Amino acid sequence: MAAKPEVAFIGLGAMGFGMATHLVKQGYPVTGSDVWPPTLERFRAAGGSTASTPAEAVRGRNYIVCMVATAAQAQSVLFEGENPALNALSEGASLLLCSTVPCAYVQSLEAQLVEKGRGDVLLVDCPVSGGASRAADGTLSIMAGGSDNALEKGRFLLQELSDTSKLYIVSGGIGAGSNMKMVHQVLAAVGILAVSEGMGFAQHLGLDLAYTLEGIQNSDASAWMFGHRAPRILTEFKPIASAITIILKDAGIITSEALRAGFSTPMTGTAEQVYLSSLGRGYGADDDSSLIRLYTEGLQNNISSSMEDGKAKKLALVQGLLGGIYLCATAESLAFAKMCGLDLDQVYDLCVNAAGGSKVYETVGSEIIGLFRGKQTDIAFESESLQDVAERLKEAVVEAQRLKVPLYLGTEASNLIRLALQHVPDQTQSLPRATIAKVWAV
Amino acid sequence: MAAKPEVAFIGLGAMGFGMATHLVKQGYPVTGSDVWPPTLERFRAAGGSTASTPAEAVRGRNYIVCMVATAAQAQSVLFEGENPALNALSEGASLLLCSTVPCAYVQSLEAQLVEKGRGDVLLVDCPVSGGASRAADGTLSIMAGGSDNALEKGRFLLQELSDTSKLYIVSGGIGAGSNMKMVHQVLAAVGILAVSEGMGFAQHLGLDLAYTLEGIQNSDASAWMFGHRAPRILTEFKPIASAITIILKDAGIITSEALRAGFSTPMTGTAEQVYLSSLGRGYGADDDSSLIRLYTEGLQNNISSSMEDGKAKKLALVQGLLGGIYLCATAESLAFAKMCGLDLDQVYDLCVNAAGGSKVYETVGSEIIGLFRGKQTDIAFESESLQDVAERLKEAVVEAQRLKVPLYLGTEASNLIRLALQHVPDQTQSLPRATIAKVWAV
Repeated sequence: MAAKPEVAFIGLGAMGFGMATHLVKQGYPVTGSDVWPPTLERFRAAGGSTASTPAEAVRGRNYIVCMVATAAQAQSVLFEGENPALNALSEGASLLLCSTVPCAYVQSLEAQLVEKGRGDVLLVDCPVSGGASRAADGTLSIMAGGSDNALEKGRFLLQELSDTSKLYIVSGGIGAGSNMKMVHQVLAAVGILAVSEGMGFAQHLGLDLAYTLEGIQNSDASAWMFGHRAPRILTEFKPIASAITIILKDAGIITSEALRAGFSTPMTGTAEQVYLSSLGRGYGADDDSSLIRLYTEGLQNNISSSMEDGKAKKLALVQGLLGGIYLCATAESLAFAKMCGLDLDQVYDLCVNAAGGSKVYETVGSEIIGLFRGKQTDIAFESESLQDVAERLKEAVVEAQRLKVPLYLGTEASNLIRLALQHVPDQTQSLPRATIAKVWAV
Repeated sequence: MAAKPEVAFIGLGAMGFGMATHLVKQGYPVTGSDVWPPTLERFRAAGGSTASTPAEAVRGRNYIVCMVATAAQAQSVLFEGENPALNALSEGASLLLCSTVPCAYVQSLEAQLVEKGRGDVLLVDCPVSGGASRAADGTLSIMAGGSDNALEKGRFLLQELSDTSKLYIVSGGIGAGSNMKMVHQVLAAVGILAVSEGMGFAQHLGLDLAYTLEGIQNSDASAWMFGHRAPRILTEFKPIASAITIILKDAGIITSEALRAGFSTPMTGTAEQVYLSSLGRGYGADDDSSLIRLYTEGLQNNISSSMEDGKAKKLALVQGLLGGIYLCATAESLAFAKMCGLDLDQVYDLCVNAAGGSKVYETVGSEIIGLFRGKQTDIAFESESLQDVAERLKEAVVEAQRLKVPLYLGTEASNLIRLALQHVPDQTQSLPRATIAKVWAV
């Protein structure tokens, strides 16, 4: 067996460290670079080599993985300062940018390389998803776009880092991988806040939160994110698995790209404003499950729910709230995917099993894709209509008004569904839930 | 001159006290009732009589003005407890309900009177607007609906309380006055938060707030509410002219009536969630200008604006933000008015000079009414297009993202405008600003 090629790894944060050490375990000689010295020490202890600068890490190596946190950091590493990594890049090196960045950034990166006479660099736009533990296991989801040549040369590394069934080669060149990640993050950005909104509402209703968690996850309102974040609400937002600033950054990528494209993202925009509010309160570094604090502050001053119908009825309110939110997030994500020109079947396949996945996405997502393709969509037997969703969401919104709890996402979803219904000439006919997507795209 | 008739006045709060004492000054014998004893004492000192219960106040009197704060209070005064005022109402008495209540409530009040055999009572649905000082001057705006008979009998009292040009007789019977007030309050509920959003954004931009106030009010982004609330931001939210709970109540009337009607109110819904958030922080009783705190907390932790373009450019960002917000509020209010079947010319006439008025309402409001009537609307010479508004709003939203300031209303407005533009087949053609109304109603 031939010796495995040397890899330079820039950015050893929670994700990068796991990915880089996984490569070490697979027998790759990996040279890591990071701004935080203790991380470098840990990486050496895990069998890696380290370099004092990115330029030193990449020099002489044909494969570079960049897993810094932001586009600004990637830009700085590659092009800025006295010793930019660019100058040290080998002829024809593979550069895998795994950071979540705006499509606009990675496209500008491609243009900058050409402009600086380094069109030989084989850039791959390949953001990842799955969290730190899957990073360390080499079972991430990866969405990779780039030239055929770049994808071919970098493919073995992408395969090492990803689950066999979760390496998505996204057609459309540089930017397509980032767009794929972005439309998934619509679901994540809304879904993370939905956990706090649902659990916060439950708390105002006087529901036991463990009961709520179980009741939601065993219902049509279940979601991957809810199953992962809600338990952390029960353990006082510990351990800190993902800081609010992380999802704020991703929400900002979505909304800034949407602004650039003239596309409307009201659900993500709403979530982003709440994330920004939490920042002003000094919560930025806390686990994102702690956003529930924005719903429960002042709880002691409020009347608690006087509903006499018992906890099953109250749980149904929370389910109705979440069902409405997930429906609108599903439509916003898929409409944006359509707008970006992505392969919707691939988008669906990626999202349905990823962190943004939900029961609603699973059932309504494919109907929305059918709708975009001009397929006649009927209401499936025993399935909810759009009016049913509106009605259940309305019950939640009305009760929240009475309890004086803000429902940022629920109110937004309720208004979007009403906008959709207002444009239907025949109000008596039941509409499939997928009709909501017409708000974004006809 | 005949002696003036006796009037019972229930509810001597900030507005009611002014109205009742104005009637006293005009020579009416007024018997007031209120739950707060010191107010009764003040009212006696001002020349009024007082009663210990609402029933005692109304007994034997033919004219009753009810100016309690909420529908629940009106219901309680009239129908509940051991000694409800209903039982003491004279045959054929005029009952003027001046409180701001949902249309649904005042209609149920009419039905309850009939049901209890008191169809003889001449109910007038007549909410008011204008603030405490205009209440005391007898120059309020009043929106009155009811039967012809009830309106005829109560008219002289409505005239005493209102400015000559600001007594609006709203056709449509009981509920029409409340609906008229409600569609005005869409402008107020959005406009009050817009003051804090604009001034909060200005503060993050590093603008002097007095300069901002002047710059806004001397521009196309001027608004009545901005001129009244922004100065109170400069005086540390003093005096307390209108508590946050007041506008929250009105926002709740709008959103609950909209839910009932299946009508979408995304701008008001967004404002309401922010009002609810402020409640959770214990700000409810504070002056509504203090909502700026929801935008400026954590300011010291943030980078301040690095824009080098100077204050004129920064002011233009705030103007662009407010212009976009007022445009969407104008469309939401007028579309809701259309949906309620109100006379749009009357709505316009009322709103343009009232607390919800703005330069944007003045110019675009009549264009939207024309659009609803199928009139071809062209872009007026040198006027902004919808795309221009979108572009200016985008610049504000992008800068706010960079500064990490939430723009709840600005983001909502930006997304609504993009929704409108997404549905236009020919993106190259400039659209009149009034086109935004198509989001609500075609």
